[in-house]
Amino acid sequence: MYQYKYARPALTTDCVVFGLDQDDLKVLLIQRDIQPFEGKWALPGGFIQVGESIDDCARRELEEETGLHDIFLEQLYSYGQPDRDPREHVITVAYYALVNLIEHAPKAATDARNAAWFSLDDLPSLAFDHQTILETARQRLRGKVRYQPVGFELLPEKFTLTQLQKLYEIILEQKIDKRNFRKKVIKLGILIETDEVEQDVAHRAARLYQFDPAHYQQLEKQGINFEL
Amino acid sequence: MYQYKYARPALTTDCVVFGLDQDDLKVLLIQRDIQPFEGKWALPGGFIQVGESIDDCARRELEEETGLHDIFLEQLYSYGQPDRDPREHVITVAYYALVNLIEHAPKAATDARNAAWFSLDDLPSLAFDHQTILETARQRLRGKVRYQPVGFELLPEKFTLTQLQKLYEIILEQKIDKRNFRKKVIKLGILIETDEVEQDVAHRAARLYQFDPAHYQQLEKQGINFEL
Repeated sequence: MYQYKYARPALTTDCVVFGLDQDDLKVLLIQRDIQPFEGKWALPGGFIQVGESIDDCARRELEEETGLHDIFLEQLYSYGQPDRDPREHVITVAYYALVNLIEHAPKAATDARNAAWFSLDDLPSLAFDHQTILETARQRLRGKVRYQPVGFELLPEKFTLTQLQKLYEIILEQKIDKRNFRKKVIKLGILIETDEVEQDVAHRAARLYQFDPAHYQQLEKQGINFEL
Repeated sequence: MYQYKYARPALTTDCVVFGLDQDDLKVLLIQRDIQPFEGKWALPGGFIQVGESIDDCARRELEEETGLHDIFLEQLYSYGQPDRDPREHVITVAYYALVNLIEHAPKAATDARNAAWFSLDDLPSLAFDHQTILETARQRLRGKVRYQPVGFELLPEKFTLTQLQKLYEIILEQKIDKRNFRKKVIKLGILIETDEVEQDVAHRAARLYQFDPAHYQQLEKQGINFEL
């Protein structure tokens, strides 16, 4: 037992991991194996240990409950409404990430009965205030693609402009004008045109591009201004 | 005494309140009256109470230590490195705000010996990791003016374009090209030209403008794209 002079709220982290597949944006959920909300789907997460940084806690809980590791998590927001957890006052620091779904097959463990990717269009009802957290993450992700280049870790090394456009369309959940998109994305100066074209396609093979890593990283730091 | 099965980090909030005066950006600091860092300057803040939301804690601590109230605080980031507080593992949720300095005279109380505005160019050394938190807030503020209109609560009801430009120059800490600024800010469509001009000025009196509240609020929600 640990004793403190004043009462303390409990502290957790929760992770919103978005997964991109060919034509859909999904989110990684776990099915809770403990009370409260036993059997309900929720964001992966859990309690912070004393001496552990918040970032480390988020990574540890994500790996323990879903098997996913080596994922770049960004802090999203902290939630602390006193009634958000029926047990007691629990404050959670939420994180989010965007990964290539194909490379990350979840595997449930510890307090999770199941772990699975869910399409954002077809979500189960979520435990706690996790629906709110998920919505905030979705908005943040949409905002982010406006001021940072996206795609480096989500697309194959060489890709077509159509693949890149599709990526933006999925994240932004809207159709994008092809001509306008190409003009703007080329103007960013992060694409290198290769000598190669697509293989094994029925239609006319499109040119393959790759990212210019140095310039991409520079713009990641410096920020872009990408209105679509 | 309060008992818990597992050890818990302590939880605080800290506030970075930026204050604008005629030609400078300042930050509100308190001089600590208790250990650790007794006598050192720090961001106002303190411990979260069980049953209190994080936002409420930030507001309460700011008012208790500095007298400032009715300020729109936005959550900035949460910091939880285990060694950031010499006492024990303390996680803090940081907030930030931008106010008109003239309207907010600080008054020290509770754990603060003093409370005062400091120019960002002339800061004392700060307690804990508050220098890092302040730097993050400064960057966030600079980023914010690119995607949200700014000035509504900082300028008098009627103002000149030079005053508005000055505001941006102070926040961005850089000189702005006058012609380019006027073109872009007028294009936003949030300014209403009044029939009035400046009074009691030695130079040629400049036109006074005011904000269009409805359009301003709409752009606050929707976001702008303001590259200077």
